[in-house]
Amino acid sequence: MLVIKIGGTNGVNIEAVITDIAAQIKAGQKLIVVHGGSGETNAISEQLGHPPRFVTAVSGFTSRYTDRQTLEIFAMVTSGKINTILVEKLQRAGVNALGLSGVDGRLIVAKRKDSIRIVENGKQRILHDDYTGKIETVNDSLLQLLMNAGYVPVIAPLAISPEGDALNVDADRAAAMVAGAVKAEQLIILSNVPGLMRNFPDESTVIPHIDKAGVEQSLEFAEGRMKKKVLGASEALQLGVGQVIFADGRIESPVTHALAGKGTVIS
Amino acid sequence: MLVIKIGGTNGVNIEAVITDIAAQIKAGQKLIVVHGGSGETNAISEQLGHPPRFVTAVSGFTSRYTDRQTLEIFAMVTSGKINTILVEKLQRAGVNALGLSGVDGRLIVAKRKDSIRIVENGKQRILHDDYTGKIETVNDSLLQLLMNAGYVPVIAPLAISPEGDALNVDADRAAAMVAGAVKAEQLIILSNVPGLMRNFPDESTVIPHIDKAGVEQSLEFAEGRMKKKVLGASEALQLGVGQVIFADGRIESPVTHALAGKGTVIS
Repeated sequence: MLVIKIGGTNGVNIEAVITDIAAQIKAGQKLIVVHGGSGETNAISEQLGHPPRFVTAVSGFTSRYTDRQTLEIFAMVTSGKINTILVEKLQRAGVNALGLSGVDGRLIVAKRKDSIRIVENGKQRILHDDYTGKIETVNDSLLQLLMNAGYVPVIAPLAISPEGDALNVDADRAAAMVAGAVKAEQLIILSNVPGLMRNFPDESTVIPHIDKAGVEQSLEFAEGRMKKKVLGASEALQLGVGQVIFADGRIESPVTHALAGKGTVIS
Repeated sequence: MLVIKIGGTNGVNIEAVITDIAAQIKAGQKLIVVHGGSGETNAISEQLGHPPRFVTAVSGFTSRYTDRQTLEIFAMVTSGKINTILVEKLQRAGVNALGLSGVDGRLIVAKRKDSIRIVENGKQRILHDDYTGKIETVNDSLLQLLMNAGYVPVIAPLAISPEGDALNVDADRAAAMVAGAVKAEQLIILSNVPGLMRNFPDESTVIPHIDKAGVEQSLEFAEGRMKKKVLGASEALQLGVGQVIFADGRIESPVTHALAGKGTVIS
């Protein structure tokens, strides 16, 4: 079992990813796709007159501030547009893809972080009405039901709270939790970089292997969005996933290359 | 088995529909929800600078001209926004809803009408690059799989062509085809009118019952969007659905009232 996280539209060669996924499926591989969509959500939010707002939590992580209107735009773009187009492209390539978001059948249940403590102009303050969540459980029986019937799940990064609120969740960490829930042998995180670089953005400094025990230390090399990918990797390994591979999504046969160990392998 | 078509957001009392669906589910009813979303697609298309365009086919029916960009907006709004919010509301009401569009797992396969002959300023011309379809098959085994596992399918009106193009389909006719495929006893079409009226818009002239054999003749009373509902009803009855009920979605307990025969019952 393989879980493949596809980054947003920025730089990833979607056609190559689709072709490679179709080849994997044809060869008998069972797999699940998880995707993001932040970049396109930003663009459409601007067009709809509700520009994105990013905040820095006291922990140092930057994240999207998701008020209810932003949540609905995020759902439109990730679940409505990106998911539909991915499923369409996979179907065209002969893969019986089926799109879901974490809201569907309570696929991904997350605790709502309804207030977040942020740092703004050097001062701490609390933001309310945020619709983001920290994933707690994944409904793996739904995924197994679909996969046993021959469908390939394609998952948009939304979750639902126990109280029934739709939430925005980080796609890398969603992929990690899904991989953990289905006991995937590998989680491949495809993006527009060739792996985790010791000296970002020098691509010749990709770290080929990180030991499971040293994954937290490798956070020091992680720039920006890569931090969440490393945290996701750590979570996935703790949940029993065999390997996490940060791999280049810009090249031909990106999944095959990742499975062959190209990129940063964490195990 | 019951299929409930919920009209767009215009006038239908969504909270009342949700509460009533939850009560039906609690009472052991198996059901499927199909929804539309034309009104909101129009509004968001305007906001995104790609206003909707409606064309009149030579047959006299008016429909949306769906170029690729319109298709993607339609997917965003129906599958991403309306579907997600319906699933969220149903989940909050204790219903284990699961959203799909017709693209997912080839749930609804339609023949693409890639060129349509329209009438414009009294002249006929042909429009190309239209992404609309005429439904041919419904993957009822996917619906049965989900329902047998306890999920309530909520379906957005997209379809996929045999070649793998996502298509916009009419939601009333999608509901009719779904009802036929699962051999529903009833198809309830909820909208912002109390039924088919002999003298539209005089609500005191609702026709309480139409015989199956006379459904085509009742087209003469159907105004605008109601025409497609009547055609859908005719298709559903031909496919073995027991009753089609055009019912008022603006009132409390709209499903219960429809099942009690309030509205226009076609059988």
